[in-house]
Amino acid sequence: MAAVNDSAPPDIVRAAYVDLVVTDLDRARDFWVDVIGLHVEAEEPDALYLRAYEEFVHHSVVLRVGRTPACARMGFRVRHPDDLDRAERWFASRGCATQRVPAGATRGLGPAVRAVDPLGFTVEFVYEMDKVERLVQRYDLRRGVGANRIDHINIAVTDVPAAYSHYTELGFGLSETIEDFTDGTLYAAWMFRKQTVHDIAFTLGSGPMLHHVAFAVPESHNILSLCDTIGARNDARFIERGPGRHGVSNAFYLYLRDDDGHRIEVYTTDYFTGDPGHEPLRWDVRDERRRDFWANPVVPTWYQGSVGMLDLEGRPVPVREQVRSERSVTVGADGLGILVPER
Amino acid sequence: MAAVNDSAPPDIVRAAYVDLVVTDLDRARDFWVDVIGLHVEAEEPDALYLRAYEEFVHHSVVLRVGRTPACARMGFRVRHPDDLDRAERWFASRGCATQRVPAGATRGLGPAVRAVDPLGFTVEFVYEMDKVERLVQRYDLRRGVGANRIDHINIAVTDVPAAYSHYTELGFGLSETIEDFTDGTLYAAWMFRKQTVHDIAFTLGSGPMLHHVAFAVPESHNILSLCDTIGARNDARFIERGPGRHGVSNAFYLYLRDDDGHRIEVYTTDYFTGDPGHEPLRWDVRDERRRDFWANPVVPTWYQGSVGMLDLEGRPVPVREQVRSERSVTVGADGLGILVPER
Amino acid sequence: MAAVNDSAPPDIVRAAYVDLVVTDLDRARDFWVDVIGLHVEAEEPDALYLRAYEEFVHHSVVLRVGRTPACARMGFRVRHPDDLDRAERWFASRGCATQRVPAGATRGLGPAVRAVDPLGFTVEFVYEMDKVERLVQRYDLRRGVGANRIDHINIAVTDVPAAYSHYTELGFGLSETIEDFTDGTLYAAWMFRKQTVHDIAFTLGSGPMLHHVAFAVPESHNILSLCDTIGARNDARFIERGPGRHGVSNAFYLYLRDDDGHRIEVYTTDYFTGDPGHEPLRWDVRDERRRDFWANPVVPTWYQGSVGMLDLEGRPVPVREQVRSERSVTVGADGLGILVPER
Amino acid sequence: MAAVNDSAPPDIVRAAYVDLVVTDLDRARDFWVDVIGLHVEAEEPDALYLRAYEEFVHHSVVLRVGRTPACARMGFRVRHPDDLDRAERWFASRGCATQRVPAGATRGLGPAVRAVDPLGFTVEFVYEMDKVERLVQRYDLRRGVGANRIDHINIAVTDVPAAYSHYTELGFGLSETIEDFTDGTLYAAWMFRKQTVHDIAFTLGSGPMLHHVAFAVPESHNILSLCDTIGARNDARFIERGPGRHGVSNAFYLYLRDDDGHRIEVYTTDYFTGDPGHEPLRWDVRDERRRDFWANPVVPTWYQGSVGMLDLEGRPVPVREQVRSERSVTVGADGLGILVPER
Repeated sequence: MAAVNDSAPPDIVRAAYVDLVVTDLDRARDFWVDVIGLHVEAEEPDALYLRAYEEFVHHSVVLRVGRTPACARMGFRVRHPDDLDRAERWFASRGCATQRVPAGATRGLGPAVRAVDPLGFTVEFVYEMDKVERLVQRYDLRRGVGANRIDHINIAVTDVPAAYSHYTELGFGLSETIEDFTDGTLYAAWMFRKQTVHDIAFTLGSGPMLHHVAFAVPESHNILSLCDTIGARNDARFIERGPGRHGVSNAFYLYLRDDDGHRIEVYTTDYFTGDPGHEPLRWDVRDERRRDFWANPVVPTWYQGSVGMLDLEGRPVPVREQVRSERSVTVGADGLGILVPER
Repeated sequence: MAAVNDSAPPDIVRAAYVDLVVTDLDRARDFWVDVIGLHVEAEEPDALYLRAYEEFVHHSVVLRVGRTPACARMGFRVRHPDDLDRAERWFASRGCATQRVPAGATRGLGPAVRAVDPLGFTVEFVYEMDKVERLVQRYDLRRGVGANRIDHINIAVTDVPAAYSHYTELGFGLSETIEDFTDGTLYAAWMFRKQTVHDIAFTLGSGPMLHHVAFAVPESHNILSLCDTIGARNDARFIERGPGRHGVSNAFYLYLRDDDGHRIEVYTTDYFTGDPGHEPLRWDVRDERRRDFWANPVVPTWYQGSVGMLDLEGRPVPVREQVRSERSVTVGADGLGILVPER
Repeated sequence: MAAVNDSAPPDIVRAAYVDLVVTDLDRARDFWVDVIGLHVEAEEPDALYLRAYEEFVHHSVVLRVGRTPACARMGFRVRHPDDLDRAERWFASRGCATQRVPAGATRGLGPAVRAVDPLGFTVEFVYEMDKVERLVQRYDLRRGVGANRIDHINIAVTDVPAAYSHYTELGFGLSETIEDFTDGTLYAAWMFRKQTVHDIAFTLGSGPMLHHVAFAVPESHNILSLCDTIGARNDARFIERGPGRHGVSNAFYLYLRDDDGHRIEVYTTDYFTGDPGHEPLRWDVRDERRRDFWANPVVPTWYQGSVGMLDLEGRPVPVREQVRSERSVTVGADGLGILVPER
Repeated sequence: MAAVNDSAPPDIVRAAYVDLVVTDLDRARDFWVDVIGLHVEAEEPDALYLRAYEEFVHHSVVLRVGRTPACARMGFRVRHPDDLDRAERWFASRGCATQRVPAGATRGLGPAVRAVDPLGFTVEFVYEMDKVERLVQRYDLRRGVGANRIDHINIAVTDVPAAYSHYTELGFGLSETIEDFTDGTLYAAWMFRKQTVHDIAFTLGSGPMLHHVAFAVPESHNILSLCDTIGARNDARFIERGPGRHGVSNAFYLYLRDDDGHRIEVYTTDYFTGDPGHEPLRWDVRDERRRDFWANPVVPTWYQGSVGMLDLEGRPVPVREQVRSERSVTVGADGLGILVPER
């Protein structure tokens, strides 16, 4: 097919997958497959390809063995084959390093374009993804939290307005923000391509780092049941925060971390954002309900990214420290006050 | 704005609303507001404008008093103001009667284009809808089944393939079908614009008739709770079918009918269909799980449309009888056999 | 210990177990263990000993291979060792055949007294039951519907008032009834020893037959999830009635039948009946909500017992036919009218 | 009837009610009725009589206006009228002050015996309680968390072994404990009369104080829904701890405090303890799952009693300080470590 010549960004359908580095595949399988219950679509001696039960494509998570936990890349699916050209041109025109990889560079994926975006994240765009057996109604196979599909990727960035601008240019809509209403500081933003609250979100912090990858699950009881199973296994270290109701997005959530520190969120579906002119919802950083609608405390570790990124050659991307954080203005608002021992 | 000259169909975002005729507004309010729990956005002496809690626009149901229960029109929201011109041109070019109405012709709506489509249904296209107070997280106000949003409209048609062709030309994608695998008869189809299983669906039967309008609700327990409330009120006549799990769409459902015979479905969210090349799922008409995944029987009344349509002048559209129906080939498959008294 | 000389009935704590005959142990295991998810406490070449996850004793169901599906006996646990003597004396004084069996006559049970009660049912009384590993919080092991405990036994009898009198003399309290308010006919009764709605219930029909054995499960979503799994396995024949809310007992229920015809109910916990002077609730047989609070139809098969009983020698107890049934007065009230094909 | 002469303790059926002093009845009504959703059985200018929906007697909570928040007395229902005499004799023989009050001393209650027990708590025993309209299935009336019934009373005591001995003599069974397995210290105990995990429980702390009163609710989603409503009302101060799963009792729980500091728990039903020889479950105080099965942190305030008691003359009972507490050995085990700000 002929290369496209327009300067439009690629038409991104949605956040589609992440490639993660884990240090021990058996231990990772225990968490991601036995506990969380993702479906193993394929496996290799040093890698697992996982998906949830309402996904029709090969995978949404690759776990690959390496020496240091990291996120190799975040993947987005585009609408047309031509969008690969658009992606390459668009990032190159911004001075970003780009790379084309052939079909099969990652098992299950067609040809892809990779780039290091202006925020320092390695992103990948793909059109073709192998179609796989429909498991939507294989309730006899669902395990763990019974995840439906990958929903979004959350990243820690040192400059939230820059991240917001970048993704706005890429055609993402804005659904919600956390801001300081008194001085205008933007602490976090949620942006979408598909008709939900987000495909990508930004949390202020040292970065570039992956904060978490999120999976939509059927109902809140599936999340409670996951907690019960984790308790029964005496694996409570996996639970970092929640369960609770988000102020932002209105989703019911739980955050977990595997033994490599990878953070995932499991949560129940948010609301429809597909109408033209959908208006963003803005939260003040001091609103104690923004992160947990019931004002339950946010554990301090949660404000930090989980793992660093790898660049196009697979080397760790240096992390710039960001000492300012939402936490510094929200002690009290997050209910942390009541958790400090009295003496 | 200048009229568009292309021959493209309007870019439809989603099914957005229905205008229904009820014979007694107090009685209708009891059902739609007190039992189902929709929010009254506006009211007039002879009309109620209702919406669910995750809708950001004026209404998704209008109930207007009249002498005979009917559906005056089914509304679709379009992406751009220009799409009104496209809608008018597109339907006119197919020999359909069309009509432009100014902003406010229906309270809460901007200028609109109406048409009688080739299937005999009065449809309306609108871009502007009044924005209203965000109620997503007003859990203190949610009542009844706590409906989130209108999800789809289901219609009874005498010719399902014709309906399928028409909506395909309008740009709808196909998500699921019910077919006779032995002779190719198409009994029902589900088609979408937004990234869910459907905005419109067709059931073979006497028509043109509205079959039902459906609302997405948060979780299955909200539907069970609605049943309990209806039982407590001694209003079990409102429950027609369910609760159960659909084979088609995988949604958890309940069908209700108000005292005018209007049928609504409340159901929990289905799956994502937004990927490029999403493949439809085809069910054989003899698969006992297609209508209820647990193979519970479908009551015979359910196979019939609920109310007739009004034309552009508000006169009833004649209903053509269709004696063939999915039921005629599925006695047994629907488990109806066990429900026939033994003697 | 010395035999007791009083004429008091045994102090029954609760319905504790049933011994069932199945014709194919592999097929039975598929249903009871793989689908329903009961825990296998012990197994032998021709028998399975099953319990639920909040039971602290050896079993609540024994499945033993035989040529004809049947219920060998229904077991009740008594409060004191002396209650075995009381049971023997009490039944003997009523002319009933009794039998003492030593510890281990049934694996996991201590010494027991068996009797054929005046209604024709073989009942067994036991004090000692082997204590087993606590699994209450082994959420990692719970399967299927995640059953908590056996709750009650329901029997089909030709004479409900006689059954009511018998169990009243045995010290059971009455929680609910179904009666014909116009002529006083007693169609069904629910009676309890433990502080719930029932340990034993009677349904008018050909008998003596076991109607069903019921297991309490955690929450309604566990029951919906079981239905989904059954649908996914294409085993919908297992589902006989429900899910729904009972009028009587207020429990959320589902009835299933295994391939031998054994009927079980899974349901969520009912209400506390332990207060002194607890007053029974009486339902008119024409109240369409008595059997299903949402007035969904009761399938006709459900009004019949599931399997016959065995006597003390293990021979089938003859079943007397009872043509009168609750169904004969409730067509319509059960909503069956709407299920009869129109023509 | 003649006074009984035996030295047996009263035959207690269950924990039945608490009489609380609130400082502002309107504010209390907002919490107990509008938020929690208890049913107002009766009201007076300075008092509210509340019950849950599966209770068949007049009330389980009295809120009466006073100058200082307190618990006036904790009520237990007895099995026979004679048990009032037994209660009076039993407490008097232990040197406790006792008091007889006539029927109607508290609205809805028959004659009662009050005593100040050896632990310093004012307790009341009653046989007659007014029967009231059955609301079990009035789902149309259920509000808030839809509470079923009062379940238990939890008290803060300076000497847990003394409390355990006292209630053992009163005939309570032991279901669970929290102990230091290394030195034998008993930190908490759960004891029952009805066939559940507890009617009374003890928490080590300054006392005598009421710790909380608990209501059983239908399912976990009712508790999540209550949190959502509280968030929507911007009343998150009401939420003290949870929701979560208890290790002890296995119940799903949430703790709330009204504006007077009264603490209540709403929780879903625990397990059956009615079998003879039911064995207690013992938890080590260092087991991080004992208070929350998912090892989520316990807020420090929760370890303290909520309000003091009144004596037989309505004067505040002095509170003795107990500096030792479960918390002092469990920092870390409760996950509190991660909640202390890093610097």
